[in-house]
Amino acid sequence: MFDNSEPTKTSLSELGEFGLIDHLTKNFSPKHSSTIKAIGDDAAVLDFKDKQTLVSTDMLVEGVHFDLAYMPLKHLGYKSVMVNASDIYAMNGKATHITVSIAPSNRFPVEALEELYAGIQLAADLYNIDVIGGDTTSSTSGLFISISVFGEAEKDDVVYRSGAKPNDLLVVTGDLGAAYMGLQVLEREKQVFKANPNAQPDLDQYTYLIERQLKPEARKDIPPLLKELGVKPTSMIDVSDGLSSEVIHLCKNSKTGVNLFEEKVPLDPAVISVCEEFELDSTMIALSGGEDYELLFTIAQSDFDKIKGNPNLTIIGHMTEESAGMHLITRANQAIPLVARGWNSMSSEE
Amino acid sequence: MFDNSEPTKTSLSELGEFGLIDHLTKNFSPKHSSTIKAIGDDAAVLDFKDKQTLVSTDMLVEGVHFDLAYMPLKHLGYKSVMVNASDIYAMNGKATHITVSIAPSNRFPVEALEELYAGIQLAADLYNIDVIGGDTTSSTSGLFISISVFGEAEKDDVVYRSGAKPNDLLVVTGDLGAAYMGLQVLEREKQVFKANPNAQPDLDQYTYLIERQLKPEARKDIPPLLKELGVKPTSMIDVSDGLSSEVIHLCKNSKTGVNLFEEKVPLDPAVISVCEEFELDSTMIALSGGEDYELLFTIAQSDFDKIKGNPNLTIIGHMTEESAGMHLITRANQAIPLVARGWNSMSSEE
Repeated sequence: MFDNSEPTKTSLSELGEFGLIDHLTKNFSPKHSSTIKAIGDDAAVLDFKDKQTLVSTDMLVEGVHFDLAYMPLKHLGYKSVMVNASDIYAMNGKATHITVSIAPSNRFPVEALEELYAGIQLAADLYNIDVIGGDTTSSTSGLFISISVFGEAEKDDVVYRSGAKPNDLLVVTGDLGAAYMGLQVLEREKQVFKANPNAQPDLDQYTYLIERQLKPEARKDIPPLLKELGVKPTSMIDVSDGLSSEVIHLCKNSKTGVNLFEEKVPLDPAVISVCEEFELDSTMIALSGGEDYELLFTIAQSDFDKIKGNPNLTIIGHMTEESAGMHLITRANQAIPLVARGWNSMSSEE
Repeated sequence: MFDNSEPTKTSLSELGEFGLIDHLTKNFSPKHSSTIKAIGDDAAVLDFKDKQTLVSTDMLVEGVHFDLAYMPLKHLGYKSVMVNASDIYAMNGKATHITVSIAPSNRFPVEALEELYAGIQLAADLYNIDVIGGDTTSSTSGLFISISVFGEAEKDDVVYRSGAKPNDLLVVTGDLGAAYMGLQVLEREKQVFKANPNAQPDLDQYTYLIERQLKPEARKDIPPLLKELGVKPTSMIDVSDGLSSEVIHLCKNSKTGVNLFEEKVPLDPAVISVCEEFELDSTMIALSGGEDYELLFTIAQSDFDKIKGNPNLTIIGHMTEESAGMHLITRANQAIPLVARGWNSMSSEE
């Protein structure tokens, strides 16, 4: 798992910039009819016809967003696509295209970048996304990945952060906190490995947590599920920086308050048990952990019957008047003010 | 010019990631009706209606693409937009939107990033481009800028690299080599400054060269000019890596050869005189210098009368059958094979 040995190494300078782009993208072939021209000209040409175009971009920086000591490059490529696609699903859209720019330092051989692109390609294939361009350059230290993602949606289907109304139900997909606890486990194993490189970690019981950290899946399935259920959310956001931070975004953009019920927050049993092991409060982890890439949205009360009992969806609260404020209602039925303590601020405090 | 002192410094951590985005983008307001939603949601929403969408992306890395010893941050912001917009004009399109992602190390105070964004905003205003999103993160060393640019064009107006035919005329806008020689002058002054920080450089005679290096202007004017003249190029590319490299791209994509006439290559008098000073061959600089951000295109012979005498456009050669090969016809009327020695390969040899 921590084995970074590379049997074959081809230096980047052997291929050159144009050679590298050609080499890394030779297996990509467009799947969408909206892709008129992909890689190979000054710009890609897309045709979304009567649909609206969704655009988002995220940059991933070695030493800030990922640690190659425990993040295999193929997983990193996969995750880079997920992080971006998640933003399109959060608009209730379909992710269709990405551009991928990378700036590796010269410590990365071509084979390492092939691994990275294998993960990108796997994600693009599974999520039906065309890779339409990018830039390949070099960095003086570390690996930088910048991805822009494009998606499409019918004009009337797009969901913003700003449409929630008081009394709307607050809904989240999947479960929360696992990716953050996966990171804690990996960080601990890294320290163990540093102290004793021959230690064989037994990570079986942490499989779910580590997978959520290293190979998250964006919720491509949710926009079509909602369509099938006949529900259009009134507001939506993806959960990348921790639940509380995202709930606050919806409230601020929609000018509402919220009551979020601690007992409703969906936690996987593995999160509960690892939090006990690490002596951490699992609610706090779900609220502030981040990197879940689940979707958080609000729906009108009248749509309750349509989503009731769906195993993908959990109602965790309801919106209130803005003047009522944003509160977490604890298991002891106490209302405490909701504060944004995202993943970034947590890590900087540690 | 080399004064990097900053009277006020606000550290990035004082603002935090969300504060920084809000702070840097607060003056941006969308100008295009196609911008449905710009900054502030999970994704921007665009509506190009019946037009095709053009997408390109470029990454600029400190120590690879720019040196802050002589590149003021405001100019860097401006140039970053130009480098990207140029790719859209090279498709015969109109640049309409950009996303801007930056990863500065913590040596950059907020005020430095404000300067960078001031240049981005100036370019966006002058080129009628909406800034619709981006990402702000941190790097462990150096400044990384990743910009994606979007444009629009009527389906029938888009020009690819691949449409040139034998006997088409090869045309270039503006003049070549100045940006590369501006870089040589700046590098020389940097060395002088290192040796004697009190030296006052007299750069008046190099103004044009330095401006072409530090504040290039992309050829926004050319697509509408061609439309006005009633000319649709058969192929087009922008000159970013040196003329010879771009001519070869057009030939390879169009499956043609070329005769490029040395005596026709447009040079500014300042380039000729500085090349004498540096004892460099000005043709070699025009062919291999790079960063000109001019447009190179081919037109049918029958369109010759339409462009004849236009001060923006110079006919520098004509396309031939692929089997005839790619040649530079020297002033001595010798045909020598055209080789790609772009800007990147030149710098790595020095």
